[in-house]
Amino acid sequence: MTKQRQLPTILSSKVSAKSKFFTVEQLNLRFSNGVERQYERMKSGGRGSVMVVPFLDPDTLLLIREYACGTHHYELGFVKGLIDPGETPEQAANRELKEEIGYGANKLIALKSLAMAPGYFGSSMHIFIASDLYQETLEGDEPESLELVPWAYHQLDQLMDDPDFNDARSIAALLMTQRKLNEAAGG
Amino acid sequence: MTKQRQLPTILSSKVSAKSKFFTVEQLNLRFSNGVERQYERMKSGGRGSVMVVPFLDPDTLLLIREYACGTHHYELGFVKGLIDPGETPEQAANRELKEEIGYGANKLIALKSLAMAPGYFGSSMHIFIASDLYQETLEGDEPESLELVPWAYHQLDQLMDDPDFNDARSIAALLMTQRKLNEAAGG
Repeated sequence: MTKQRQLPTILSSKVSAKSKFFTVEQLNLRFSNGVERQYERMKSGGRGSVMVVPFLDPDTLLLIREYACGTHHYELGFVKGLIDPGETPEQAANRELKEEIGYGANKLIALKSLAMAPGYFGSSMHIFIASDLYQETLEGDEPESLELVPWAYHQLDQLMDDPDFNDARSIAALLMTQRKLNEAAGG
Repeated sequence: MTKQRQLPTILSSKVSAKSKFFTVEQLNLRFSNGVERQYERMKSGGRGSVMVVPFLDPDTLLLIREYACGTHHYELGFVKGLIDPGETPEQAANRELKEEIGYGANKLIALKSLAMAPGYFGSSMHIFIASDLYQETLEGDEPESLELVPWAYHQLDQLMDDPDFNDARSIAALLMTQRKLNEAAGG
């Protein structure tokens, strides 16, 4: 099996729409079989983002409940945010923890980085398990304080069943964390 | 712990940008603490989408390698697509299987539905495990045929490590499938 086909040629590209937070780029592509097609994608700052799965102790996960505009609903998920200019992903993870839940982490373990809908978005989300936490708060830019939701790790099944825990990235992060911990426990 | 805060009030909304495939909606919100903030989200058709994890036999997953415009890269992932008007999620799952890999499924098991970045998108992705497959092809709208990638289920670790397997939704779908099968095996 061939590992990689020849990528489509980008014949032209332009910004086709722009709002306060989003820039849509339109691409005219020619695939290797000669077929031409118009695609659109979202332009991003390109610095990527982080998501953090924090353990207050070995059986206590810290989640947040935060307003999500797309669903107009309070969603349960993990601390996350964009990487600031000049930051490493680890620094961003620690800053977001301090801004969103009032803890820093002495220990961060990097898991696999995720793409969010690679058909539309180019940027990567770096996933971390955080432990050995210490209290420290940084001022964030949230419009309201985020509700901190401690969750017993042994009740992971109930978290997976919770109708407010839906974000594909939070679910992937939780189950990758479980894999990592099972691996560590299995030797 | 209170389960749900009072949702922000939508003071006004308007379309702030529109391209061929994307519509950006701008919302002026007032949070329950009185803070006002402008948000943006992507408007969707609202019918949602499906992703399917197909088993050709108990140890053979069928993946596809498909061009992703956001990353300008061929990405490894599962069959997916939008639900057409009038379709149930199950019908959409079966149609997408026929269009993208040339199989229909006699058996579909629904897993948890996922949100893709609920801060920006409102629609839901329904995840299915498909088995008891039969050969049947439907014409899709892909610009080129998709590369079918069979993968041994017992080599799930290698799939998780594959640098082309990044999509948060595919990873969540794979690990939810593993949970489901482990549950079934465990009784």
